Amino acid sequence: MKKINLYDENDFNDLHMKRLLVHDSPYFKILNFNFKPGQELPIHSHDVEGQLSITVLEGEGEFLGKNASLPARAGDVLVCDISEPHGIRAREKMRVLVTIAPPI
Amino acid sequence: MKKINLYDENDFNDLHMKRLLVHDSPYFKILNFNFKPGQELPIHSHDVEGQLSITVLEGEGEFLGKNASLPARAGDVLVCDISEPHGIRAREKMRVLVTIAPPI
Repeated sequence: MKKINLYDENDFNDLHMKRLLVHDSPYFKILNFNFKPGQELPIHSHDVEGQLSITVLEGEGEFLGKNASLPARAGDVLVCDISEPHGIRAREKMRVLVTIAPPI
Repeated sequence: MKKINLYDENDFNDLHMKRLLVHDSPYFKILNFNFKPGQELPIHSHDVEGQLSITVLEGEGEFLGKNASLPARAGDVLVCDISEPHGIRAREKMRVLVTIAPPI
């Protein structure tokens, strides 16, 4: 058993989103991204099998997709294929948790 | 892309923890459990390969293990093997998100 607290281990940065690798194993990769207002994880995709989830822990913003964006707020869980274009843009200070399975 | 909001889709129950299946695919299974104070997911394990994460979205309680328990609070992420005994007990109203990879 391994435990970490995202609030203790990761903070915010004025220049860019702050990334924390929470866990990496053959089964999944878990990452925490913290955004200040206006910061983003640009739309991207990887041509591999698998899916990812994005859970919004705090704050508001948008999930970015290929042709549209969806509002994102605390308690939202987005699931998409890794091969599907996805990204995040923050409107407020925002903490999200991303899980990728299998890990890439 | 599929999005659900845990706060909208799941609530609390006086008699037992409230379970919501968020997503199930060949890659991972995602579940949301909501607990009232004193409710628990009893310690259990499955003799299969894989790992799970438990993220505390709200509230306080304990992660239950074989020989000990660990304090659990918002922002905590616990990772363990599916074969390792694990459980959760709530001290306050508590929302957690569980991801199991590969799904069982």
